[in-house]
Amino acid sequence: MDFVSVSCLFKKHQPKLNKALDACAKRYAWSAYLESPSSKVHGTDIPHAGKINFEDMLNTTFALDIPGEVGRTGEEVSPYLQTPLGIDYPKLDLDILLPAIIKAMPKWADASRETRMGICLEILQKCSEQLFENAYATMHTSGQSFIMAFAGSGANALDRGLEALAYVHRAIQDIPETAHWERKFGAGAPVTLHKKFTLRPRGVSIVICCATFPLWNAYPALMASLATGNPVVLKPHPNAILPVALLVRVCRQILAAQGFDSNLVTMVADTKKEPATIPLLARDEVAIIDFTGSPEFGTWIENNCKKASVYTETAGCNSVVIESTDDLHSVASAIAHSLCQASAQMCTSVQNIHIPAQGVVVKGKLVSFDEVANAIKLGVDDHLSSPKKAAFLCGALVNEEVLSTIERYRGLGKSRAKILRDSTPYEHPEFDNARTATPLIIQVDSQDHDLYQKELFGPISFIIKGTNASSCLTSAADDSAQFGAITAHVYSQNEAFIEQATAAYTEAGASVAFNLVGMPINFAAAYSDFHVTGLNPAGNACLTDLSFVSNRFRVVQQKRMIK
Amino acid sequence: MDFVSVSCLFKKHQPKLNKALDACAKRYAWSAYLESPSSKVHGTDIPHAGKINFEDMLNTTFALDIPGEVGRTGEEVSPYLQTPLGIDYPKLDLDILLPAIIKAMPKWADASRETRMGICLEILQKCSEQLFENAYATMHTSGQSFIMAFAGSGANALDRGLEALAYVHRAIQDIPETAHWERKFGAGAPVTLHKKFTLRPRGVSIVICCATFPLWNAYPALMASLATGNPVVLKPHPNAILPVALLVRVCRQILAAQGFDSNLVTMVADTKKEPATIPLLARDEVAIIDFTGSPEFGTWIENNCKKASVYTETAGCNSVVIESTDDLHSVASAIAHSLCQASAQMCTSVQNIHIPAQGVVVKGKLVSFDEVANAIKLGVDDHLSSPKKAAFLCGALVNEEVLSTIERYRGLGKSRAKILRDSTPYEHPEFDNARTATPLIIQVDSQDHDLYQKELFGPISFIIKGTNASSCLTSAADDSAQFGAITAHVYSQNEAFIEQATAAYTEAGASVAFNLVGMPINFAAAYSDFHVTGLNPAGNACLTDLSFVSNRFRVVQQKRMIK
Repeated sequence: MDFVSVSCLFKKHQPKLNKALDACAKRYAWSAYLESPSSKVHGTDIPHAGKINFEDMLNTTFALDIPGEVGRTGEEVSPYLQTPLGIDYPKLDLDILLPAIIKAMPKWADASRETRMGICLEILQKCSEQLFENAYATMHTSGQSFIMAFAGSGANALDRGLEALAYVHRAIQDIPETAHWERKFGAGAPVTLHKKFTLRPRGVSIVICCATFPLWNAYPALMASLATGNPVVLKPHPNAILPVALLVRVCRQILAAQGFDSNLVTMVADTKKEPATIPLLARDEVAIIDFTGSPEFGTWIENNCKKASVYTETAGCNSVVIESTDDLHSVASAIAHSLCQASAQMCTSVQNIHIPAQGVVVKGKLVSFDEVANAIKLGVDDHLSSPKKAAFLCGALVNEEVLSTIERYRGLGKSRAKILRDSTPYEHPEFDNARTATPLIIQVDSQDHDLYQKELFGPISFIIKGTNASSCLTSAADDSAQFGAITAHVYSQNEAFIEQATAAYTEAGASVAFNLVGMPINFAAAYSDFHVTGLNPAGNACLTDLSFVSNRFRVVQQKRMIK
Repeated sequence: MDFVSVSCLFKKHQPKLNKALDACAKRYAWSAYLESPSSKVHGTDIPHAGKINFEDMLNTTFALDIPGEVGRTGEEVSPYLQTPLGIDYPKLDLDILLPAIIKAMPKWADASRETRMGICLEILQKCSEQLFENAYATMHTSGQSFIMAFAGSGANALDRGLEALAYVHRAIQDIPETAHWERKFGAGAPVTLHKKFTLRPRGVSIVICCATFPLWNAYPALMASLATGNPVVLKPHPNAILPVALLVRVCRQILAAQGFDSNLVTMVADTKKEPATIPLLARDEVAIIDFTGSPEFGTWIENNCKKASVYTETAGCNSVVIESTDDLHSVASAIAHSLCQASAQMCTSVQNIHIPAQGVVVKGKLVSFDEVANAIKLGVDDHLSSPKKAAFLCGALVNEEVLSTIERYRGLGKSRAKILRDSTPYEHPEFDNARTATPLIIQVDSQDHDLYQKELFGPISFIIKGTNASSCLTSAADDSAQFGAITAHVYSQNEAFIEQATAAYTEAGASVAFNLVGMPINFAAAYSDFHVTGLNPAGNACLTDLSFVSNRFRVVQQKRMIK
């Protein structure tokens, strides 16, 4: 890596940062990175090299040269091949690792704001240059389709990182570096003080990544902590270490090339059998924890890691309420898309679809409950009409537990409700052994609360028959407040109902989208969507806003009397 | 109260808010309120009326008309008269109070940002019009001198409130109210979304006030929470209810006059024998806690109130290190001022004065340890050379426990160290029965850690003999990190030592002041000083900065597809 002076790095990326600042302020659509893996954009060499780079990593030792290595760990299995990736990672002794991290801190803490920001921007830039490798790594760990792994875990995720840097920039620019202060006290002569305000880090920052979107939350958390002076330990999910390892390697290379200690960014990998997360969180040095994963563990962290600032994104019962529409086909297709996309393993995937028993008004005419439910089922079938389409949209299941959940709910659906659409594997055109499942849709009555009032991870959804549109709305909004929600959708052509829904979701502390069709409704846009409200159980932190970044550093001041 | 339309209130106070925003950005000296109680400024009618209003409140029932009143409470005793104020306040049933507060929330949450800001600015304005009443109430509860009660608990405290509003304004202006978002997905037509971003409160905010500066932290905490949409319950210290009750009355009057439910601001008073704080904090409705008081209770809250965001300011071992000076007299006088001011019952009062055993370089010549120590003693004597000066500077002791602490440390000083200056009562020129004490100064060796390594509340200080200037600095900085510090002072003419001290305190997470003389060194300036770093045990929150306000509200969004 060429040596680029630190102020140069900031200057190099400043136009991009400025554009991100403007996008955050006005919240229009923008991306700093390329979403398409097309050879029209990238040529053929880069995609090919990315694939080769990924393949070359299989069945090898991933070197990171992190202090405290006492063995090797890792047991990732490709959801597409259902064979181990065969990659091992450092297994670390925390009693050696943590002191090495602490030792790395002072120089980074003392670096200028622009130095840190420049290096963070450079990290995102270098990551954007390995998006093909990252896409294959994400595919073969999280089970995402290639296109999703390239865009959603690539450009869209990097954008969240840049967005976090924009907020850090705003928060730190709010603190002047110096001040001149002069006043009289009583009858005395005026006194003059020169004041200097020094930004200081909080301490070691732990970023716990999830299995299905390893970097979507990791980029913003890493950037928010690192740019404010904190060292970061990434803790990947045991199923999805490789994408995190690729990121950590970039960070360490750039930090070292810029004359900083590479131990400012490290990774503690583990296996499901020998988990390392809780011992890591229990360390006294930990000041900040970012968590993405299950609501249960998120709540455990919020309740038990009292000395650290905790930022969580978990999951919830994302819902749809259909009251009326002018275009049932498009609505059904949009909802069906959410049920299929990434096999509903996204934090924005829809689970609970509330439809009034009396049906839905379509272009002024009442269409029956059964017809609407069937339209959604047909929408799913249509999205999966060819193995290629299915593979493109659904990808694979991250692990065996998703299959068990499908199996269990198929049973419950049969015995207690109605299977509207059964889940089956689909044949992947490229990987014979891919772990796949199409959406299971269960029709239930609204009183079957125990079936649908919790997040089920994977392609399981409920079409819930409510008494009327109002009661559907009340159920969906109440569930958001009680069980959490990251997204909620309402389809209505009725302004009074839209107003009622706005009020209900606002009261529930949940964001809501109206009448989204013709686009992936799961899509959350960096620089525009405030992701996670923090007002319901689906997480306490927004990715990203000022509160996500402003407590990751503190101000220490020096004042000095000037004669 | 005249009805003033809400947008008018914002417009009325907008110039003041703009000035506060500018002052925060540049951190120069400014005050929005009058610091002097002089009749040259106020005339004679207003001060007289304030005194009469205070006297008229004595031995009466303080009506607040808060729901859930099940009796009366309060047992304040004047530190100047040592007789009860005889004022009683509502004793509240939380099971009635909290539902009434919750009922008050929706309209306030739905109000425009400008409406809430305008009302908060108006509250500060009305409070600034009752500063004489507030000064007498503060005197006769906290024991502050009249001048301190008028300025420090008046203008200086209100400035902290306005500063908090400036930060709220910055944080909420950061969120646009709407956005237009348009992009293409794949080959489809561009989709256009209209987005609306709604600020939402977190929930009930509890503000726990302290005995000696009842409103200095209450104003910023109240303003930060109320302006962001949260209802606020003030919990005064049982010794100092009246200043809080006066504030709460103003809030309730203005809220009601502006058409809002006055239960958005309430007060839960109690007595030492029947404390109400813990049951209040235990309520599920509580989302935000601001605490000022003892480190023990602050830590308890940080560890036990897990569901709420907790902002604390407690106390620490504020220190002085004297290395060299050109003007020993001024240095000694400045330190002595801190030992006397408000009987060292301030969060910025100095306690531990580190002096090298070999003495201090004064104008290039070594002055012995004993001479320097004696200069500080003489500085104290000089500040207290007349009862009028003593009364003006020291005020009275908030409670009997301060006397007990003095008694205990006098004993320890005699048996284990050396009493450099004994504490005696001083005769107050106006109040024969005032509870007073001049500074107790104990000379110790630096190894007598157990004597000085904790905050002692009241006029007790230590002159600590260190091996040399460097070891003095190390001790003082290390104690800041371990036991907390809100202020630290260093006197040095040696640039290398100043650099060393800057590094040591920065590393300790403590702010430091160099060579402050000719001004009250306890003074913390709103809009300029970042009060409390949050990096040492003296508290976790800065009054005020973006992190003090930005997590008191959240963003809920509505997005809607435009055909």
